[in-house]
Amino acid sequence: MIKQAARRLLAAFAFAWLIAAAPLAAAQDPLPSWNDGASKRAIVAFVARVTKAGPDFVPVPERIATFDNDGTLWVEQPIYTQLEFAIDRVKLQAAAHPEWKNTEPFASLIDGNTERALAGGEEALLQVLAATHAGMTTESYERIAREWVRTKRDARFKRPYSTLVYQPMLELLNYLRANGFKTFIVSGGGVEFMRAYAEEAYGIPPEQVIGSSGRLKYQMRGDVPELLKLPAVDVMNDKDGKVVSIHKAIGRRPIAAFGNSDGDLQMLEWTSAGKGARLALLVHHTDATREWAYDRGSHVGALDKALDAAVAKKWVVVSMKDDWNTIFPK
Amino acid sequence: MIKQAARRLLAAFAFAWLIAAAPLAAAQDPLPSWNDGASKRAIVAFVARVTKAGPDFVPVPERIATFDNDGTLWVEQPIYTQLEFAIDRVKLQAAAHPEWKNTEPFASLIDGNTERALAGGEEALLQVLAATHAGMTTESYERIAREWVRTKRDARFKRPYSTLVYQPMLELLNYLRANGFKTFIVSGGGVEFMRAYAEEAYGIPPEQVIGSSGRLKYQMRGDVPELLKLPAVDVMNDKDGKVVSIHKAIGRRPIAAFGNSDGDLQMLEWTSAGKGARLALLVHHTDATREWAYDRGSHVGALDKALDAAVAKKWVVVSMKDDWNTIFPK
Repeated sequence: MIKQAARRLLAAFAFAWLIAAAPLAAAQDPLPSWNDGASKRAIVAFVARVTKAGPDFVPVPERIATFDNDGTLWVEQPIYTQLEFAIDRVKLQAAAHPEWKNTEPFASLIDGNTERALAGGEEALLQVLAATHAGMTTESYERIAREWVRTKRDARFKRPYSTLVYQPMLELLNYLRANGFKTFIVSGGGVEFMRAYAEEAYGIPPEQVIGSSGRLKYQMRGDVPELLKLPAVDVMNDKDGKVVSIHKAIGRRPIAAFGNSDGDLQMLEWTSAGKGARLALLVHHTDATREWAYDRGSHVGALDKALDAAVAKKWVVVSMKDDWNTIFPK
Repeated sequence: MIKQAARRLLAAFAFAWLIAAAPLAAAQDPLPSWNDGASKRAIVAFVARVTKAGPDFVPVPERIATFDNDGTLWVEQPIYTQLEFAIDRVKLQAAAHPEWKNTEPFASLIDGNTERALAGGEEALLQVLAATHAGMTTESYERIAREWVRTKRDARFKRPYSTLVYQPMLELLNYLRANGFKTFIVSGGGVEFMRAYAEEAYGIPPEQVIGSSGRLKYQMRGDVPELLKLPAVDVMNDKDGKVVSIHKAIGRRPIAAFGNSDGDLQMLEWTSAGKGARLALLVHHTDATREWAYDRGSHVGALDKALDAAVAKKWVVVSMKDDWNTIFPK
């Protein structure tokens, strides 16, 4: 109990320190992992326009910035991290499910053949998600996801997934917050999966994480209430769905939005169609050496129509290779 | 343009002043409209427990407080304000809908006979909501609702609805925020209707308002994107639904919850079942002279099972008549 209280006190001091330190940090270059170039200059110019007195000034409560997650804040190749988690869960649960040895897509996943397992398309994917993301309480799921994302290492980079976040984007999040912005995640990923690490990794609290979600059932176990995760999709937070979720959850149009794929096109359209200064930015994965290189035709995070729109509408397109001098935190 | 910039600057200064003034205000009695008694003492004791070093200390990011709206933060009798708004809209739109003269429930509403109109039950209510809350963009709706709630006067109190909020609850919201709490509305009311006045009236920004909502469609009008409100219910944020929404939107269990009816029972149950110090509070409408007196058997805001639960679980039950020396802001 005393240990817990001490930890909480420390957390409170750390929080106070972050607030106190913000003005100091702003005096130095707030974006050291960004090379000097058009992208960095566009970001800094936008923040200056909306925070300084003038026709484009935006009051603090209206400084809303929304970020896609997979491929924008952390790695999404060679497959979405949440899918990697689901596959891992299938393998771990296989002993308790002998019937899976003869049932697809589970048999192929246990064999390590992800491609064959997912050949069943959406139906196969939903089966895997139902078997790994439902049938337990929200608290059990949170514990499992939290542990996994902090400890499981990515095959290529040999680092825990929670550290495969982009250092330049962490700096951008901090820079915006230091300038009065409220930063939100608006992602197709599962909202509970992202919350398992978003506060620690990005400084984004759970109530500012918007994602896809399944149905829940409120029930009593004896006299203790619990929320049971049901095997049914409720919200698909992608494409048009991102704009709908932004309106439902935030109720204000963002003035800045950040994405990396066609799933973000509508969010960037909606953001940039508002009045006044706007920032719409795409992260273009152009660095096969330090991370991955992909865009049109990729099976994960395809960037095609949104890239055309960015050119036509003069959105900022960040080239990972040229604009970032660092990819991951040290 | 200059006028607008000046207004925005003023808004920014007002915001900064609020933050700077908070510690000063805390030195005086933060709840002057609350009579000294068990309810007030329970609130103050709870805030002290979770904010001071000790075993019940709660770090700032976890200080989540959720408030029901109708009957908890503002008047809900003799009918929900949002229904009054819908009826008003039917009357205003009647000239453009000559067919309504011969169609229920519209004919009765236009005749001023609400009771007869609503005798059609849920079906009738959904027809009224569809005719008044859909078929327009989210921006048009916001404009209409915002104007109405600021100007339309309640028949009994002769005040605009946006001012029929409870002064003691405004003080409570401010007191909690001054102590690091994040305050949310979690109500069965329409999320867009509440957002039309919640920031001004309660100091609660749109992203902290959770409510019922209809389906939306993202579409392009020429090259301008818009969100169209569809005549279909998406989320019903009442009873069990409140707990589900809290988990989906906030992702953290509140440590304090405030309601006034059986629709709030599950939210209070869920909140008080968490570990550590918790505050669950019901506003009991006991003052027919200054506001209204109702509980079990009321057709609006019935308080029956939740009142039994409050006694059994020792939740705080506020008697409006005895605990509040003021009802509405001056």
